[in-house]
Amino acid sequence: MLIDQIADKWSMMVLAVLDSGPLRFNAIKKQLEGVTQKALTQCLRRLERNGLVSREVIADSPVAVQYEITPLGRTLQPPFRALYAWTIAKMPEVEQARQAFDQRWAR
Amino acid sequence: MLIDQIADKWSMMVLAVLDSGPLRFNAIKKQLEGVTQKALTQCLRRLERNGLVSREVIADSPVAVQYEITPLGRTLQPPFRALYAWTIAKMPEVEQARQAFDQRWAR
Repeated sequence: MLIDQIADKWSMMVLAVLDSGPLRFNAIKKQLEGVTQKALTQCLRRLERNGLVSREVIADSPVAVQYEITPLGRTLQPPFRALYAWTIAKMPEVEQARQAFDQRWAR
Repeated sequence: MLIDQIADKWSMMVLAVLDSGPLRFNAIKKQLEGVTQKALTQCLRRLERNGLVSREVIADSPVAVQYEITPLGRTLQPPFRALYAWTIAKMPEVEQARQAFDQRWAR
């Protein structure tokens, strides 16, 4: 199912940081706190394969690669923003539920 | 990050099938094609812990358990629906991108 390949944390964050324009790998990495080299590489490759991000090798020395959100990728931003807004708005309620659940099971 | 625990395939599908009312474990399982006992158990436990689904033991013989979407869980349905609608609408474009990508890398 497509959702599994689309709605992961890093994909959502990569699409968010590419919103303002193309970026190189290291610039993306800097903005994604805690992402590993491997996780970001896999994430970008998946985004590229799904047509959500395009990859361009820039003639440079040393050779650099930049990533840009595609028109298809842009159509995914509104649903992602809605989901992100939900997590921000409802985090306190979820936290409360978790604490209640953990206390119930700790007894 | 909350998104990782929320936006997985089975969670989205469980919230969808519970939309019309409470269901027992086996009734949920029947409607989720391909889910294993273990994956559904873990998914329901996560949904319950996050306060999105409530679990009720019904006095019955044999003892049965039913699951119901909570008011908090209902607030997650609109963003999930938007994401699901995106996958349905854009699947052909994503498929086309994948084929192009795979051909590019197979050469």
